[in-house]
Amino acid sequence: MRAVMFDGALHVVDREWPQPDAGEVVIRPRLMGICNTDLELMQGYKDFSGVLGHEFVGEVIEGAPEWMGRRVVGEINVTCGSCDFCRQGIPSQCRDRRALGIQNYDGAFAEAFRLPVANLWTVPTKVPDEIAVFAEPLAAVCQIVEAVHIRPIDRVIIIGAGKLGLLAAQVLRLTGCDLSVIVRRERQSALLAGLGVQAVARDKVADGQADIVIDCTGNAGGFAESLDLVRPRGTVVLKSTYADLPQADLTRVVVEEIKVVGSRCGPFGAALRLMQRGLVDLRPLIEARYTLEEAEQAFQHARQPGTLKVLLHVG
Amino acid sequence: MRAVMFDGALHVVDREWPQPDAGEVVIRPRLMGICNTDLELMQGYKDFSGVLGHEFVGEVIEGAPEWMGRRVVGEINVTCGSCDFCRQGIPSQCRDRRALGIQNYDGAFAEAFRLPVANLWTVPTKVPDEIAVFAEPLAAVCQIVEAVHIRPIDRVIIIGAGKLGLLAAQVLRLTGCDLSVIVRRERQSALLAGLGVQAVARDKVADGQADIVIDCTGNAGGFAESLDLVRPRGTVVLKSTYADLPQADLTRVVVEEIKVVGSRCGPFGAALRLMQRGLVDLRPLIEARYTLEEAEQAFQHARQPGTLKVLLHVG
Repeated sequence: MRAVMFDGALHVVDREWPQPDAGEVVIRPRLMGICNTDLELMQGYKDFSGVLGHEFVGEVIEGAPEWMGRRVVGEINVTCGSCDFCRQGIPSQCRDRRALGIQNYDGAFAEAFRLPVANLWTVPTKVPDEIAVFAEPLAAVCQIVEAVHIRPIDRVIIIGAGKLGLLAAQVLRLTGCDLSVIVRRERQSALLAGLGVQAVARDKVADGQADIVIDCTGNAGGFAESLDLVRPRGTVVLKSTYADLPQADLTRVVVEEIKVVGSRCGPFGAALRLMQRGLVDLRPLIEARYTLEEAEQAFQHARQPGTLKVLLHVG
Repeated sequence: MRAVMFDGALHVVDREWPQPDAGEVVIRPRLMGICNTDLELMQGYKDFSGVLGHEFVGEVIEGAPEWMGRRVVGEINVTCGSCDFCRQGIPSQCRDRRALGIQNYDGAFAEAFRLPVANLWTVPTKVPDEIAVFAEPLAAVCQIVEAVHIRPIDRVIIIGAGKLGLLAAQVLRLTGCDLSVIVRRERQSALLAGLGVQAVARDKVADGQADIVIDCTGNAGGFAESLDLVRPRGTVVLKSTYADLPQADLTRVVVEEIKVVGSRCGPFGAALRLMQRGLVDLRPLIEARYTLEEAEQAFQHARQPGTLKVLLHVG
């Protein structure tokens, strides 16, 4: 079968058909999404080598009979089931985890891939593929409101109006909070205006006023900018992963008594409910579609600044 | 009068008698403590120039008649009273604050110094000077339990068993938590043993197990060590201020969903209650006493690794 392989460079290659372990199924993806993490992996993050891809909606084609034929999305952490975190019901922090297309586990950018049944969520019938493919990143932004209590009176600023930032805006607007997104492009402003969310240029925002700042920049500069924007005793939520180690003004965190909260994978159940209830508007985030064979071109497109979600399909 | 001045170098100099503003008193210090922040200021932190010193117990000798003759300790933030934080009752985060011996306000290492009445706390009669002089740093470690809920079942590790770390241990042991302090010196172990607190060498502590790690190292390396020790979804409390900008693995904060909480000045009322109730044992933390005239020697002593609290008195 064909698969999008990264081993220092990107290739579309022939791979052998996936061999599911016990408790795993084989899934044929219907749509796949390119995430910034994929781009970071290609910059050396996690020293990953293997089949890329962790955002998908697909159909179960092998494995447990009760799952056969179901349209599914899936959590990315492949866990041990026996460490302290697995036993506490926090498998996303499994101490011995692998992660779909990110860590020691081949990803979804292929004609077929395997995943444990425990990771699967059935997609509600009324949610179409091009919405369902956002389940993983939408769950990840739901984790912001899982990790931090955002109150309706809070002044919240999202920095980084890319794919992740615009998704975060979709979820945060639902809290009723006073939400602004810092934008650099007219197109982002137009997308946000449609959601009733304020888009602002950085130089129009006063420093030190936000109760909560959410760093969706995807780069090492986001933290310093977050510290500039947040008020003393405010909260900075970090959503970006990258290969760099930024120089961080931790003394400022102490002196201004700031809380910094890291947040990673999130609740798929909540993401699917938001989709089913029509509370998120995801189609405008789709930038382009490519076939697996065109993956190299798709990644080049995804890497252009200001590009929103680039999708792949088997073709 | 004589005062300990820092202007790029340390000098004991003649200064004019302090001129209190409205709402301020003049205090004659009975005992003063040298803090790591004083040493950091001498390394360039805050670009401070002026009279050093923010830890003291003293006697009011000029100003509001109802305060005359009282034995007092004092909060260090000299605030505007009108910004949003002052109005919200969080004067320690005043947007226009000065700070005693730290920022735009002469400090306590002098024969006399001024401070607003609003900053003063009367010392209970039964608390002697050599205990009361710890009010400011003890309040600062009380802020740890003010900022973070430390539960009796939590595994807590303090790194940095210096002055601040040993004070933090005194407060944290009161929560009943499973507390360890990472030590490098036999003397620290002996002090902690007397408190029923476990002292451990770094290489005897497993990574990724602590629910809460408190960085009292006072240096830029403490954060990376804290991230090694804390479990996923755990909390790192930062207590250290320094002039450096460490390279911080913020991606690890995201991936392991760690919470980082900065904490600065704390509640003097709580510190004085702990002293009055005899719940903290502070005398063993006193390393040496010097007169103001001997300040240079006192600072040299305080700067030696492993040195505990060096006190000054007017002489």
